[in-house]
Amino acid sequence: MAGVLGQLDGEEELIVDPGTGDGIDIDQLLVQAIIPRPIAFISTLSTAGVLNLAPFSFFTAASANPPVICFAPMIRRDGSKKDTLRNIEETGEFVVNIVSEEFKDKMNLCAPEYAADTDEFAISGLTPLASDLVRPPRVAESHVNMECRLVQVVHVSPLPRGGSLVLGEVLRFHVDDAVVTNGRIDPDKLHAIGRMGGPTYVRTTDRFVMDRPK
Amino acid sequence: MAGVLGQLDGEEELIVDPGTGDGIDIDQLLVQAIIPRPIAFISTLSTAGVLNLAPFSFFTAASANPPVICFAPMIRRDGSKKDTLRNIEETGEFVVNIVSEEFKDKMNLCAPEYAADTDEFAISGLTPLASDLVRPPRVAESHVNMECRLVQVVHVSPLPRGGSLVLGEVLRFHVDDAVVTNGRIDPDKLHAIGRMGGPTYVRTTDRFVMDRPK
Repeated sequence: MAGVLGQLDGEEELIVDPGTGDGIDIDQLLVQAIIPRPIAFISTLSTAGVLNLAPFSFFTAASANPPVICFAPMIRRDGSKKDTLRNIEETGEFVVNIVSEEFKDKMNLCAPEYAADTDEFAISGLTPLASDLVRPPRVAESHVNMECRLVQVVHVSPLPRGGSLVLGEVLRFHVDDAVVTNGRIDPDKLHAIGRMGGPTYVRTTDRFVMDRPK
Repeated sequence: MAGVLGQLDGEEELIVDPGTGDGIDIDQLLVQAIIPRPIAFISTLSTAGVLNLAPFSFFTAASANPPVICFAPMIRRDGSKKDTLRNIEETGEFVVNIVSEEFKDKMNLCAPEYAADTDEFAISGLTPLASDLVRPPRVAESHVNMECRLVQVVHVSPLPRGGSLVLGEVLRFHVDDAVVTNGRIDPDKLHAIGRMGGPTYVRTTDRFVMDRPK
C-alpha cells in the first residue's frame, strides 16, 4: 500500500503544500503528526428522540473558567454532516464521555457511520445513564462524564469537506470515585486511551514526570 | 498534598459544578481527564523582532481541507496574554513544531513564563531554522513543522481568566525523511510525547491496533 507521503526519493525532507493536488492525503498527515490525541466519546439525542454515540479524536479544552471544551466533527466524505453535529445544532446539548481501555471494543462498534435512526448504545451494548442537566444520557461505563451545553459552532472551512469546531460549556462533571487516588484522577485507574494515525491507539501507561523549571 | 478533587468521603461519584466556589481546580480537572494531549511547540516573532517559543497542550486539528489547526493559549493567572498569543495577533503568523522525546528537556526550558524580551531559542539551545512562507523560524530539531497563518482567534470566555482558541491554516508541512517508513510518519521514529495531568508526560510507545468495523 502506498503511503500517504508517497516516495521521498532520497530527499532529506518532504515539503507538503496543501491544495496543490499532489495527491497527499492531508487528513492522514494530520492524524499521523498530531499525536497522541484524547478521545471525546459523545452522546447526543436527536429531536426525534434517537440516541447517538460516536467517538471523536480532534478534541481539547479551550478555557477553564468557565470550562469550555471543543471538538471537530469532521464532515463526512460525501459532504454531509455527522449525526452528532446535527443533533447538537438542533438541541444544543451533548455529553463528553472519557474512554477507558476496558470498553474500547464497545466504543469501536460506535465508530462506523450508521443511518441517523441508529442507536449506538443499542449496537454497542453500552449503558445510557440519565444526565442531570441535559437530555442526552451519559455512558455509565465511562469514569468521567462532562454534561455540556453548546456555546458556539465555528465554521472553519466551507462545505463540502468543511470543518467546524463545536464549543461546549461543561455544566457538570461526574468523576467515578474508583479512578481517584489522593484527590486526583489516577491514570493507572482511568486507563484512558488515545488515538494515533490510522487504526492505531495508544495507552497512557508509559509515562514520565518532568517538572517545569522555576 | 490535598488533591484537586478533595475528599470523596465514601461517595461513589464526585459531582463537580463549575463556578460554585467549592474550591475544586477546574484547570487541573480538565488536564487530568482529557488525556493524552498532543503538544504544539509554537514559534512566533514579535513586532519588535524577538523570537518566542512555547509549548501548548490544548491543541488539535479543526479541518483537513484546508488544513486548519487550533490551540488554546490559556490566559496567564494574572489575566495577561501570553507572548505567543500577542505575537500571533500582531503578526498573523506562527509555526507548530512537533515535540520528540529527544529534545524534551530543551522544550521544558521553554515552558516557564519569561519576560516578553526573552528568546526561548537562546534559553533552550534549540535551533531556529528559517521558514519558507512565514517570518517565525521553525525548530530544526522538530521532525514535523507546520507553517501557519492566523485564520481567527475565537474568544471563548471573558477576561480575566479568559480563554481563546487560535485557529491557523497550515500553509506548508515539513516532514523529516528520518521519521518516515513506507510513506507514513512512523511513531517509533517520531517518538512524540504527550501531556497528562500535572507534570506528567506520556510516550507513544504502548500502542494497539483496532480496525473500525465495516
